[in-house]
Amino acid sequence: MYAYKRKAQYHETDKMGIIHHSNYIKWMEEARVEYMDFLGYGYDKAEENHIASPVAGLSIDYKKPVHFNDIVEVRVSVTRYSGVVQEVSYEFYNTTRDELSAVATSKHCYINDQGRVVNLKKVLPELDAKFAAEFAEYKASQES
Amino acid sequence: MYAYKRKAQYHETDKMGIIHHSNYIKWMEEARVEYMDFLGYGYDKAEENHIASPVAGLSIDYKKPVHFNDIVEVRVSVTRYSGVVQEVSYEFYNTTRDELSAVATSKHCYINDQGRVVNLKKVLPELDAKFAAEFAEYKASQES
Amino acid sequence: MYAYKRKAQYHETDKMGIIHHSNYIKWMEEARVEYMDFLGYGYDKAEENHIASPVAGLSIDYKKPVHFNDIVEVRVSVTRYSGVVQEVSYEFYNTTRDELSAVATSKHCYINDQGRVVNLKKVLPELDAKFAAEFAEYKASQES
Amino acid sequence: MYAYKRKAQYHETDKMGIIHHSNYIKWMEEARVEYMDFLGYGYDKAEENHIASPVAGLSIDYKKPVHFNDIVEVRVSVTRYSGVVQEVSYEFYNTTRDELSAVATSKHCYINDQGRVVNLKKVLPELDAKFAAEFAEYKASQES
Repeated sequence: MYAYKRKAQYHETDKMGIIHHSNYIKWMEEARVEYMDFLGYGYDKAEENHIASPVAGLSIDYKKPVHFNDIVEVRVSVTRYSGVVQEVSYEFYNTTRDELSAVATSKHCYINDQGRVVNLKKVLPELDAKFAAEFAEYKASQES
Repeated sequence: MYAYKRKAQYHETDKMGIIHHSNYIKWMEEARVEYMDFLGYGYDKAEENHIASPVAGLSIDYKKPVHFNDIVEVRVSVTRYSGVVQEVSYEFYNTTRDELSAVATSKHCYINDQGRVVNLKKVLPELDAKFAAEFAEYKASQES
Repeated sequence: MYAYKRKAQYHETDKMGIIHHSNYIKWMEEARVEYMDFLGYGYDKAEENHIASPVAGLSIDYKKPVHFNDIVEVRVSVTRYSGVVQEVSYEFYNTTRDELSAVATSKHCYINDQGRVVNLKKVLPELDAKFAAEFAEYKASQES
Repeated sequence: MYAYKRKAQYHETDKMGIIHHSNYIKWMEEARVEYMDFLGYGYDKAEENHIASPVAGLSIDYKKPVHFNDIVEVRVSVTRYSGVVQEVSYEFYNTTRDELSAVATSKHCYINDQGRVVNLKKVLPELDAKFAAEFAEYKASQES
């Protein structure tokens, strides 16, 4: 688990006076990238090794609006992982208002330069081990 | 059902060379807004009547990447509707490549100026009738 | 000269209730891309020939706010052109409100795959001829 | 003068593989907002006092591309200030690559709820004093 802190920006607001819902999708990506840096294997390093991680799908439930200047902690976990398929989950916790703003998940696979799906265990074992450990931590937290 | 045509823009691409996945969420909103114009009751008119329609949640499955300059037809339908709760569904059909790019749904409620959830049947009966007719059309199409 | 029509989108508004100023920069690019299509030599074709056209600089004066659902006509002209350096100018005319929203210019050069500045006259003579003709038209319009 | 640090995000890249030029405009706003927080009078506080600060114009020169994950320091100064008219200047310094990425300026006025231009000296003397001091510091730095 990793918590990415993000300030809600003025240019992210809309005419309802709150953060536009499309920005949360960008924050999910930012959190995921920071998470990989935190794990010690950055997304840029995966790209240098010719591995990309497209988003296969995502879903999000919006619970409370986020306002300009609010600080949101995006808590990221690996909630499913097989080497080939990965699910990442997100809790958007608004620390300014002390409330949960949204929950979300995204699904990913890993592909090489030819766009072919690859198994991280084989192509990036170092990163695979980190994701596997994170997933194990998540499962343990669910059982306890 | 309504089909909204959209050209994929350069500023929407990312370093993978394809349209960044967050932009689809904006296209969903654009399609929804155009859909309401097409039905004859624009979102601006709802706002003038102090009714807003926040996104309560959404999910999307990405199937094929969209490239710069591709034309995407976003086909919108009302797939659930009660006056209080609405689900809108989207098919992203890439007419340049003749393939389905993505499918998505979004969930909405309707709120007044005080942020309280309202029943469209009561507060905007004209719009309610249009959504109800669209939902009926959708159900009929599923049964046939 | 070419006029690109664009509807101001909900996701482009900010909490002031108007279109956020950063979006005009994206509309400039959209207008430029459509302009090249209109001239018969699209930006995608330039890219296929390994020529890109980065923005070297831009300036914009905002005159009147644009609101959600307004139709803005972005009138594009080539106001300077030498084969190596190009200036494109933009008038943002709000046809919904019948007023000038903004005026802007952007500066461009052309580069090859190695990032080296090239002369369009040499590398893409077909596109060069079109830009030269547009620039001649602009100069003639200024003299009359 | 204030230096705002910003990591270049994946969703800000484009198919040239670099940060899309429109994002710099958003970073300017982010830097301005943080600058006001640093000065001790946040933009949210100005808004609570019914004063907004629209962008009247801006210009930017792009010097070197910024890449995904680069850290950019946006150095903000008040380079013109009269209480009614303000110019803010920006240096985008890429600390990852140790090079200047861009320089920019933006022009602002201050308006009340009726959209009328106001003099900060009269309506927000506390903020006016801070901007005046920053402008004095800038002028002194230019003379030395």
